[in-house]
Formats: sequence, C-alpha cells, structure tokens
Amino acid sequence: MKFVIIGGDAAGMSAASRAKRNMSDLEVTVLEQTQDVSYSACGMPYNIADPDRDMDDLVVRHAHVFREKQGIDLRTGHRVEGIDRNAKTVAGRNLEGREFEISYDKLLIATGASPIIPDLSGFDLPGVMALKTLEDGKKIKDFIGSRDVKKVVIIGMGYIALEMCEGLRDRDIEVQMVKPRPIFLPWMNPELASVVKEEVEGHGVGIHLGHKIDRIEESGSSLKVICPDSILEGEAVLVAIGVKPNSEMAAKAGLELGPFDSIAVDRTLKTNDENIYSAGDCADAYHVVTGQKTWVPLALRANRAGWAVADNVTGKRTELEGIAGSAVFKVFDLQVARTGLSMGEAEKAGFDPIEVAVKTRSRAHAHPGSTTMHVQIVGDRKSGRLLGMQIVGREGAVHRIKAPSVALHCKMTIEAFSQCDLAYAPPFSPTWDPMLTAANQLIKKM
Amino acid sequence: MKFVIIGGDAAGMSAASRAKRNMSDLEVTVLEQTQDVSYSACGMPYNIADPDRDMDDLVVRHAHVFREKQGIDLRTGHRVEGIDRNAKTVAGRNLEGREFEISYDKLLIATGASPIIPDLSGFDLPGVMALKTLEDGKKIKDFIGSRDVKKVVIIGMGYIALEMCEGLRDRDIEVQMVKPRPIFLPWMNPELASVVKEEVEGHGVGIHLGHKIDRIEESGSSLKVICPDSILEGEAVLVAIGVKPNSEMAAKAGLELGPFDSIAVDRTLKTNDENIYSAGDCADAYHVVTGQKTWVPLALRANRAGWAVADNVTGKRTELEGIAGSAVFKVFDLQVARTGLSMGEAEKAGFDPIEVAVKTRSRAHAHPGSTTMHVQIVGDRKSGRLLGMQIVGREGAVHRIKAPSVALHCKMTIEAFSQCDLAYAPPFSPTWDPMLTAANQLIKKM
Repeated sequence: MKFVIIGGDAAGMSAASRAKRNMSDLEVTVLEQTQDVSYSACGMPYNIADPDRDMDDLVVRHAHVFREKQGIDLRTGHRVEGIDRNAKTVAGRNLEGREFEISYDKLLIATGASPIIPDLSGFDLPGVMALKTLEDGKKIKDFIGSRDVKKVVIIGMGYIALEMCEGLRDRDIEVQMVKPRPIFLPWMNPELASVVKEEVEGHGVGIHLGHKIDRIEESGSSLKVICPDSILEGEAVLVAIGVKPNSEMAAKAGLELGPFDSIAVDRTLKTNDENIYSAGDCADAYHVVTGQKTWVPLALRANRAGWAVADNVTGKRTELEGIAGSAVFKVFDLQVARTGLSMGEAEKAGFDPIEVAVKTRSRAHAHPGSTTMHVQIVGDRKSGRLLGMQIVGREGAVHRIKAPSVALHCKMTIEAFSQCDLAYAPPFSPTWDPMLTAANQLIKKM
Repeated sequence: MKFVIIGGDAAGMSAASRAKRNMSDLEVTVLEQTQDVSYSACGMPYNIADPDRDMDDLVVRHAHVFREKQGIDLRTGHRVEGIDRNAKTVAGRNLEGREFEISYDKLLIATGASPIIPDLSGFDLPGVMALKTLEDGKKIKDFIGSRDVKKVVIIGMGYIALEMCEGLRDRDIEVQMVKPRPIFLPWMNPELASVVKEEVEGHGVGIHLGHKIDRIEESGSSLKVICPDSILEGEAVLVAIGVKPNSEMAAKAGLELGPFDSIAVDRTLKTNDENIYSAGDCADAYHVVTGQKTWVPLALRANRAGWAVADNVTGKRTELEGIAGSAVFKVFDLQVARTGLSMGEAEKAGFDPIEVAVKTRSRAHAHPGSTTMHVQIVGDRKSGRLLGMQIVGREGAVHRIKAPSVALHCKMTIEAFSQCDLAYAPPFSPTWDPMLTAANQLIKKM
C-alpha cells in the first residue's frame, strides 16, 4: 500500500513515522516543499532572542534520519500543486523545476497554515517579514543580527506577536506593537487582559490599539508603518496578525472545507474522500465543549492528528475526541493560559454563560515569594457545566490550566470541579487552589 | 439552634465561619484546647527555616476576629474530655482547671491528629520534639535558635520530615534522617523515589534506612539516637514518623471508627450519630478511585469538609465525593507530586494494575533551562482506567498533577486521558506533555 503525505511538518512527519512503525512494509512518501522537516517551530521566537544560538538547534530530526533509519521516502523541495482524486495521484514540481506525479492508495494533506499578509502597499518590502517556517525564522534572525536592528514594529498582538516581542526586547530592540482592532487579547476577560497588557508595557513596549494600517513605506534604511493618524517606524516590520489554513489545493480537488476554510475532517481525520485524510494546521477539529467544528492551529493537536491518521491508514481505527481550546504562552515574566470557551465564544455556541474573575495569591498565607494570580472561570447557567478558564500569573498558571482542560473533556460541572482533590503545599498555592476559589465564587454567583 | 465544635483548627474554624455566614442567628461555639486557631500549620517548616521570620506570621485570623467580627463563641484553652450523646452535652476543663459542660443540637468533632511518638525510652527528653501545633513549631524554632543547634536527627522520612530537613539545611544545620523501614518513600515508584533520595543526599543529608530505633539517650548537651548497629547524634531530635487521628473521645462515646481508627463519616460528614459530624484530620473519607474508605490527613480536605458540615448543619445538604489521594511537596529543588493509587495500593484495592515510569524533559526540544522530569502512571488492565500518577521534577510537577487528579474524579480511562488537550509552549513542556507521553507508553504496554 502506498501512503503519500503532502507536508513534512508536525502532522506529516508524525504520521509518516508512526505509519512506518505500525506497518513496516508500508510505502510512505512525504512531499515537502521546503528543505526542513521536523523542527520546533514554536521555539523560533526564543531562538531569535539569543544571538548566540544556532537556528538549526531547533531541528528535532534531520531528513536523512527519516530516510535512512526509518525507511521513509522523504522528498524535500517537492511542491505538490494538484490532487487528482479519480486517478489517485498528486502532481507538482520540485525545486529544480522538474515535474513529478505520484500515485497513492491513501493520501494525507498536511499542508499547514500560512501567515496572513494584508494586501496593502509595502508589505512586500525587504524587512517586512512574517514568522512561520524555519526559513522565515532564519531570515528574521539574520536580518536583525546583520543589520544591527534597533527598532521593530510588530503588526498584530496574538501569541506569536507577543512571544516575538519578548524575544526582541531580550535583544534590547525597541518594539512598537500595532493592530487595527481596539481590544488587547479580545478573547480574554478584560481584567486579566489588562494584567498582560501592563506587563508588556512595563517592559517598554508601545501598544497601539485601534490603528488601521494603510501601508508600509521605505524611508532610507527605515520602514514606516503608516496609519491614518500616526506613523510607526522601525528597521524591520514583523507581520503577525494570524495564519490561514493552506487548503486551496484541497478545495480545488473538491474536498469540503470547515471553519476558516480549514479542511473538514471527521473524527478519524478523514475528509469527504474515502482515501484522503487531513491533519495539522490545515484541518479542522471538533471542540469538546461545543461539539461543533473549530479550527485551532496548534502543535499538540497536529502531532496527535498525525498519529491518528497513521493508525487509521494502517488499520487501527482511531477517533479523536477533539480539542478543548487550550493554549498557553509566556510573555516576559507572566504565564498566560486558557482552556475552553471565553464568554463570547460560549454565548455564540448557545450556552447561557456566567463568569467570575478572582485575584488570589500564588502561594500560601505568609509564604515568601508569593505573587498575584488571576483566574477567570466560565460556567453554563443552564447545565452547571464548566465551559472555560483563563489564568494569568507569574508562576503556576500554565500547568494549572491542564486540570480544567481535563475537566472539559469530561464535561464536568463547576460543582464537581470545585470538589476536586487538587493538592496543596505552601510553596505552591493557598490551601484552596485559586482555581477552586474561582469555582466556589462562581457557584455562589450561579 | 446550638452548633458546638470541638477543635479550632482548619476543619473546625472553616465550619464555624461558614455556618455563621449561612445562618447568622445560629449559636456557634468552638472549644479549642490550645490558644491558637486558624494558622497555616503546613507553613511551619518554612517559617522555622528562616530565623528572621516571626512564627505568628502564620496566623491567618486571630481569635478576636472570630469572636468580635464573626460572632463566634470561640473558647480557647478549653479541653473537651467527654461527649454525652444522650444528654447532648460535651464536658471538659479549661486551662485554669475549671470544669465546663455545654449542650449542643449539632456537634462537630474536629479534633485533628497527633504525632505518633514511639513508646521507647528517651522520647520524653527535652530536645526530642514533634511538629504539629503552632506551639510545637515555636518550641522547635526557639530550641534551635536559642541553643544554636548545629546537628539534628530526624526520625521518619515522610512529607513533614523532608520539609523540616530542607528547613534545617537552609539554616546550615547538619541533618541525619533515620527510620526502621528499609524503603525510602515506599508508596513511590522506585525510580522516582531514588531521584528524591539523591536530591536529599545531594544536600548533605545522611539517610539511614532500616535502622530500628532502641532508645534516645542524653549525653551532655547532646542526644543520642541508639540503633542496634549505630548511634546518631544531635542536639535535637525531631520525631516525624506520622500522625494518628484524635478519635479516642469519639470512640469512647460509641462512635464508629474507620481506617487507622479515624472517625467514620458518611458523605455528608455525619457519624453514626444523627447529631454528630466529624471533619478534618480526625475523620475518614471516601477515596474516589477505590470507592472505599481511606484516611488522609491533609489541609484542603479538612477545610472542604468543614464547609460541608456547616452546609449540612444549616440545612443545605452537601455530599462530598471524596479524595483522590493527591499530595505534593517540595524538597530542596525538587517538586514531588502524587495523585490516586500507587501500584501497591491498586493491587490491594483489587485492581489489576500496570505502570510505566518515563523520563522526559521539562521543556521543549532545544529550549534553554530544560531539566529532567519523571512521570509514573498506573492503569487498570481490566477497565483501562487511570488509577494514579506520580511526578518528580525541578519545575512543573506540582501543578501538573492536578490534571490527573481531575481525571480520577471523572474515572477517566488512560486512553481518554491521553487524548486531552494539554496546552503546550516551549518554555513549559515538550509538545507532548510528559503526562501524555507516560499515558501513551502505558497504552502500548497495556
């Protein structure tokens, strides 16, 4: 049997490796348009932060290992341009311009996502860059280092924008962040969002909300981001306003699309074509809280989906329950964590949501080193179910959020969550964990 | 209605405060034999570690606040000596030796637990001390400070022994730990236990396992702990071999006892007497994994049980689901966490348990500052259920364990747990959280 995979990033290589492990005589071919496979993409902002680290440190497994040790026919520099579902072939062109056509029995589309670049004047100037591939990362790091960049404008204020912001400040680069929408972290409870905003501003970063961007202009060795009412200047501009799924080819082949034009898959990761799977940042997923389709381009679910595809292709039927909307990031000395639905998302999904945000301490009464911890919790008035949680703090936010994530998978009520035996010791939390305090407060309010 | 509470520690004062909040005209009387109520007992080892901190920092709420602001009739220095269930009275003696008798409509026994002191010669010598009450803590701190103690022997190697060991080493005091049983942290997977043991030994602490203790002898200003084959010497000896529930009075009154002679209560915290509740370290609890009774003297469940009693007494019926066997502690630079059952406990409870222990990294590939993380997971071969987890690491162990704790409350399978959306970012974990890696390994083995 021939298993062909388009895309050699997290989902693609996870699928390839596991399929080979499951069934050693399976013919596995991976077609990857870049030269890089299996690297820690999420690690790039931290690598860029440190001029002394080599970007290739981020490579987890080199192409030759997949080829020689794992017996995977991994073809880098191979860009697939079309899928013929009737003939069961994919066709494209390699870096040297040579055309290729490969037949498959089972196909996995793992084409990932691409940064959204506004269709405005100046976004194609040198020095205007987005971070997605390892090549992008190298380009940014090289640009900053070789030109001794002192000022950067970041367009966007999502996870990657904030991580890059921290990385650049670590290198003592002045950072201005700008975005057209008026609200900082719009999915976040306003009280918690303002804590994050203060942390960023406290590190000397300018935050410019509600600034529509007209164009970017070159001005000597500098770039100007032109807004109707202001101009932000830097030697480089990072565009980090979000990503979109690479689903055009799938759509052209007649595969159904889901939220945000991601490729629609069932719980076995199968598209509407019996022989075609999709996984990773290009594919949609079920949300365990809403039961509805969603699209969340994050690494863990890409890896997990890759494995599930491998299992299904090799005859070990596997269904994925879905994602809980968990996401965490670090920004300067703060940990930011979320799982489940925000108030807005919960309303949109038809729940009758109610929230509280509590401010507690990170450690026990009188324990030295205690810091402030903010926990927001969302519940459903009708069913009593836990719908989501957000935590911001200087310690213990990120790992804590895994508990409500599990609770969401179990469709737990707030009441049941409040009864959980969440261990306590003075260096780590008050007797009542801040999450339990939040749950107890919400119960009172409900 | 008259609600009388014996014992003004975590469970007792939680119950008193909440009962008054629930029902302001309730007559609430608390009888506490010491002078101290509402202090962070678990914080004592950390306070003792720092000669500059006042021990009274640990007091969360002073007696007069309960009396004046909350309207609780709090009587410190009142030792209850007997319960007359027919007359519905309790009787005892106060510090001045005056007898008292008080009638109740509802009674809460929250007498806590006491350190186990072996019935051997020399355990009553000055300088041989155990840590339980705030008075104990002050006595130990004063003894160490005023005599400029340089060497301490700790008998026992449980949580408190290890926390005290760290506290004493912080003060540059030489510590020798000794216990009769041959295994260090016997409930722990041996691989993980050896990591903890090495950490303790790495901080210059002598660990003497399998040393039966014959007696303690005075020798000038020093104390000798005499074992058949060796003698350990220090200016002070801490006895930390465990605690036992203070249930003698309850037993004498004909109340049923549970595991380890703790007071048996149902899910509403009621004893076999309609009008008598028990909560905190003196009472038993249900274990959510086994469904059986267990006895775990820890702070969170004491507070929670106190609240539940208050609710039940004031007519708001509340049932507690039980505990998951979660416990965490810090020892030097290590975090140690457990939840659920160990292999031995799982076997004893009639499961068909299987475990794996994995060694992973605390952060993503190539992320600076990554350390080793050990995760053990226990599952049931028959049902596929998650039964327990243990984690040892330099970061992220303690808060992580809250996720499997929630899973245990939900009776989740290992398979379902392995599908949880546990968020990832490079500074905090590999893409697959170490707990997921452990679950995935166990699935393979099952």
